[in-house]
Amino acid sequence: MLRAVIKVGIVGGTGYTGAELLRILVRHPHAQVVMLTSRQEAGRRADQLFPQLRGHCALAFEPPDVTRLCACDAVFFATPHGTAMQMAPALVDAGVRVIDLSADFRFADPAVFKRWYGLDHACPQLLAEAVYGLPEVNRARIRTARVVGNPGCYPTAVQLGYLPLLEAGLVDCDTLIADCKSGVSGAGREAKLGSMFSEVADSLKAYGVGGHRHWPEIVQGLTRMAGSAIGLSFVPHLVPMVRGIHATLYARLHRPGAADLQALFERRYASEPFVDVLASGDHPETRGVRGSNVCRIAVHVAPDGRTVIVLSVIDNLVKGASGQAVQNFNLMFGLDETLGLVSPPLSP
Amino acid sequence: MLRAVIKVGIVGGTGYTGAELLRILVRHPHAQVVMLTSRQEAGRRADQLFPQLRGHCALAFEPPDVTRLCACDAVFFATPHGTAMQMAPALVDAGVRVIDLSADFRFADPAVFKRWYGLDHACPQLLAEAVYGLPEVNRARIRTARVVGNPGCYPTAVQLGYLPLLEAGLVDCDTLIADCKSGVSGAGREAKLGSMFSEVADSLKAYGVGGHRHWPEIVQGLTRMAGSAIGLSFVPHLVPMVRGIHATLYARLHRPGAADLQALFERRYASEPFVDVLASGDHPETRGVRGSNVCRIAVHVAPDGRTVIVLSVIDNLVKGASGQAVQNFNLMFGLDETLGLVSPPLSP
Amino acid sequence: MLRAVIKVGIVGGTGYTGAELLRILVRHPHAQVVMLTSRQEAGRRADQLFPQLRGHCALAFEPPDVTRLCACDAVFFATPHGTAMQMAPALVDAGVRVIDLSADFRFADPAVFKRWYGLDHACPQLLAEAVYGLPEVNRARIRTARVVGNPGCYPTAVQLGYLPLLEAGLVDCDTLIADCKSGVSGAGREAKLGSMFSEVADSLKAYGVGGHRHWPEIVQGLTRMAGSAIGLSFVPHLVPMVRGIHATLYARLHRPGAADLQALFERRYASEPFVDVLASGDHPETRGVRGSNVCRIAVHVAPDGRTVIVLSVIDNLVKGASGQAVQNFNLMFGLDETLGLVSPPLSP
Amino acid sequence: MLRAVIKVGIVGGTGYTGAELLRILVRHPHAQVVMLTSRQEAGRRADQLFPQLRGHCALAFEPPDVTRLCACDAVFFATPHGTAMQMAPALVDAGVRVIDLSADFRFADPAVFKRWYGLDHACPQLLAEAVYGLPEVNRARIRTARVVGNPGCYPTAVQLGYLPLLEAGLVDCDTLIADCKSGVSGAGREAKLGSMFSEVADSLKAYGVGGHRHWPEIVQGLTRMAGSAIGLSFVPHLVPMVRGIHATLYARLHRPGAADLQALFERRYASEPFVDVLASGDHPETRGVRGSNVCRIAVHVAPDGRTVIVLSVIDNLVKGASGQAVQNFNLMFGLDETLGLVSPPLSP
Repeated sequence: MLRAVIKVGIVGGTGYTGAELLRILVRHPHAQVVMLTSRQEAGRRADQLFPQLRGHCALAFEPPDVTRLCACDAVFFATPHGTAMQMAPALVDAGVRVIDLSADFRFADPAVFKRWYGLDHACPQLLAEAVYGLPEVNRARIRTARVVGNPGCYPTAVQLGYLPLLEAGLVDCDTLIADCKSGVSGAGREAKLGSMFSEVADSLKAYGVGGHRHWPEIVQGLTRMAGSAIGLSFVPHLVPMVRGIHATLYARLHRPGAADLQALFERRYASEPFVDVLASGDHPETRGVRGSNVCRIAVHVAPDGRTVIVLSVIDNLVKGASGQAVQNFNLMFGLDETLGLVSPPLSP
Repeated sequence: MLRAVIKVGIVGGTGYTGAELLRILVRHPHAQVVMLTSRQEAGRRADQLFPQLRGHCALAFEPPDVTRLCACDAVFFATPHGTAMQMAPALVDAGVRVIDLSADFRFADPAVFKRWYGLDHACPQLLAEAVYGLPEVNRARIRTARVVGNPGCYPTAVQLGYLPLLEAGLVDCDTLIADCKSGVSGAGREAKLGSMFSEVADSLKAYGVGGHRHWPEIVQGLTRMAGSAIGLSFVPHLVPMVRGIHATLYARLHRPGAADLQALFERRYASEPFVDVLASGDHPETRGVRGSNVCRIAVHVAPDGRTVIVLSVIDNLVKGASGQAVQNFNLMFGLDETLGLVSPPLSP
Repeated sequence: MLRAVIKVGIVGGTGYTGAELLRILVRHPHAQVVMLTSRQEAGRRADQLFPQLRGHCALAFEPPDVTRLCACDAVFFATPHGTAMQMAPALVDAGVRVIDLSADFRFADPAVFKRWYGLDHACPQLLAEAVYGLPEVNRARIRTARVVGNPGCYPTAVQLGYLPLLEAGLVDCDTLIADCKSGVSGAGREAKLGSMFSEVADSLKAYGVGGHRHWPEIVQGLTRMAGSAIGLSFVPHLVPMVRGIHATLYARLHRPGAADLQALFERRYASEPFVDVLASGDHPETRGVRGSNVCRIAVHVAPDGRTVIVLSVIDNLVKGASGQAVQNFNLMFGLDETLGLVSPPLSP
Repeated sequence: MLRAVIKVGIVGGTGYTGAELLRILVRHPHAQVVMLTSRQEAGRRADQLFPQLRGHCALAFEPPDVTRLCACDAVFFATPHGTAMQMAPALVDAGVRVIDLSADFRFADPAVFKRWYGLDHACPQLLAEAVYGLPEVNRARIRTARVVGNPGCYPTAVQLGYLPLLEAGLVDCDTLIADCKSGVSGAGREAKLGSMFSEVADSLKAYGVGGHRHWPEIVQGLTRMAGSAIGLSFVPHLVPMVRGIHATLYARLHRPGAADLQALFERRYASEPFVDVLASGDHPETRGVRGSNVCRIAVHVAPDGRTVIVLSVIDNLVKGASGQAVQNFNLMFGLDETLGLVSPPLSP
């Protein structure tokens, strides 16, 4: 059998999501990373920055160059927001499929993007056709998308946790509460005081209670699921662990006791390769999905019988970023959706 | 000036709360620990179990003996539930003041105690006069109490966070949500799989969603504050840190925008030595109170304007256990409430 | 091409090395785990103990039964010492290849085994033919071995670090110092006070300075390499991390400056798939090999010019246990030595 | 009794050693911090940077001004090297006692300072009279010193561990090996990639094997103790914990078995308030001295009978920096050496 090779470029591969893309793609049977770009690290080999890649990746970073990137079949953007929307139009014109891990292609409404990210959108037309890359919701559209806006980490955990409830119309959409906890890698690989070991170890804090950029992204997604307006309180917390997001989701049942929630969740996700519904009464741990693309969910009803509590965990760098990006890549190229994503989690 | 010496006994001092009582009391200007008991470690010096006490405490554990304990002025119980209620009546009869860190004297209703702890109460009469040891609520009664039921760790953080709102009647008491995160020391010093480093490090999970013993204690306290029935969802989470509790508390305002919540909290706690209200918009960190008796609180209103979000942090071993016990001890013996509790937190 | 399936049994798969064997073998292209045994957990599915295996392993534990195990082609022992030597003879007689991760088959001299492990050896004849499973030293003999004694974690890191120096006869064998640091998973999955999160987090200590069971194993290995008596000080330390061993190895050069040590190490390990020699001046990190079978080594000369300092890191559960066991399995069955062991490390 | 108040200034109090000085001094019965300086944070209150100081310190940072600092009785420098030597002469001229936590006044030989720190010394005359602030060695001279060069963290742990052996002339001074492990706070509070949580958590590495600035400081100290040349290999390691240094020290005995090392250490440190010698066979933990000024030491002889192994632990921010600085301050002002330094360690 002839094995197709899909040429892949990664723009901005010096952060944790870039390194994670490499970790996954170097073992992908059909993808071949042919180009890594970084203005800052141009000339340096990726395995010098990331010794875990020694023996797995011989590529060096080169300065970003759209013309050269056009030789790829697919380009991943693992850049801060604002970069992908500058380069994507030329790539798409050249027939390159684009998967953007930043926020540039996540919002249907460029005004929302501007309000939360402070930039005018550089290509609103391309934004209009971009598909939000949550396969459990948009699988069909992702297959044919030219540009995929890969979801944020919190939004992935929260949306997958609420999805069955909202689709089924079982809960009050006006009083949703998402209390979320994230490992420190979610803050990226930039040196900053707030991410230093001595600042976050042996401690926990909430942050961004007054407003976090993932809030509008979650609200957009939940609104589509519910088909109605969403009232959501979202509080992220910083946890002294490297990877992992735990979303604890609260909602009020319209009719307590009316629906078998366990069955609802199991049915909704029965054929999803990367959503794992635990048995009734269980509690997922973030380490149980470390290094894997799985979102693991448990659904509970509080003793009052009226409040649903959903526990949803992911690895923020995998299902919350690079793994989901590869899942989207697989869909876009007609491959088995799980290629490159089948290794068991690493635990302990 | 003559310095009064109050003779103190500690029953069951081999756990973390016992060690923490010693850490605090060995520097207390008026207390002198004269007796430490432990059936299991009898004969062993406390500083062999707890090397941090070397040079600070020369006592050895002895088997628990009520008669000998009656020579103390005050006895702290740092035992699992079920022990204090057996020994307290004889001590009280002998004029010894009792401060129980277990659950034995926390519940007004022995039936609630039995439902959640599985034991018939051994001295319901003494229970009836016992005072719940939350000084911010019961200061006057604690001063004269013969028996104080020292609050649990989660209940302390949650009650202090909700207190101003409930007293002022500003929120819907039927839809309260307390999403709480605790360090591992809260699970005690017993060897068990679920507390092992390799099981909890670099991970986070919820537990006890179906029912946790601190739920009825919190509900009892909030009910008294509100003067009406309480509907509370309480979800505890295990965090890879040693000390610290972070309670993230949600409530629905009856009349959004009607009250200045920041002023309300500042006023309510203005004269409290161990409650510190942060400025509007701040986020407390658990490490900021590590080793101290402070409960630090920030109050936020969600962007929807209707949901109050209170962030409340304590050190579970200090304000959540042994520090609060010493605060109660100070009150009971007419001392300055802060004696022994004035060292700054240890951070980083 | 017909893909051969090798039937594998795992005895005692309830610890961390057992779980790690499963993690590796469920993705191995030629091995099929057909039997898991555990007296204590008989009847329970492996993925209930280890949720990371959900979707990857549907096996349940069964009580150990030599007769049933004889249907396997290979049996791994992930048991405490004393078990494998009881069951191995019958298995070997039945033609089953045995890979023992415990200490039962590591020592050539049963008297040494008895001195350090307190047991008479149950099958000294089988011990006599067993091969010490360090492929970088014994590859040829491992291929044909019926029983392999898989090395301990510290011994693997230390031996690979000293190997080129001792083989080349460059250092004083009488004054070797191995200062080693290990993550907590090395202490196993049994609940014990010394492995609890609140006991080891945010702390470091040496242990076993007076004598540790890995000392005679290391000495045996180094003696064979050097062909002369070894004087070794070995001090292990417990580090607040889950996985990883860092061996810092000191030796005195016979003739300072005479040899190019960097070239020596690179040459010695040029064709080793799982030993990675860093460039001169580099420092390996344990996280750089997390989850992988690589031993990463850097060689330094102290400023005095006479002291060699070798830094050698492994993942104690992989190259220090289960990964090396699979490497040995591959060799024993004539497979590519790297099968099942090629995924990049997980970092951060 | 009249309580003397000693006015204290802290230059550069925005790092961890500055915060730690404040933590200690705000509770010191005779010191009063009257001035905090920082160019960068001028105008900001210290308790905004360090919330743990809320309620303990109302000072704000001001720009450094030698004239204003001259109103202090004592000035601590918690600055990077190069600052104290610029300001100290004027302060000393004004009668201010100076305690420098940087390296400026640690080296007798300005050429050594220049070689390792890259700067010409700004005041070699003052350097000539400065006293190295290790009280266990230089107590008498510290009492009268005008300038004290406070030791580095590694140097404190290493020198106190070797001191009895070298003074007694029992070991070969040419083959000393100090394998040291430090928590991340030792790297300071500056944002840098290598100190980020996701870079150091769950990992361990050696660094600076080719040369570390604490090496010449240690060698200078050991040389004085031994009265002869020192050959020392020093390898520092970065450990995923916040505070703590563990020095594992190796030395060859001249005459194995000739001396009772346990008695030697106990005798040498019998009257030292901050050196605690453990019983024979014990292993100190870094957490056992967390937050305290104690150096805890255990002395072992390796099974070969010829190698002494000393385990020496300190809190790098206390005995390794700010606590030792306050100990020196107490000595310089004729106070009880332990003032402000008597709280028990915080553990767990």
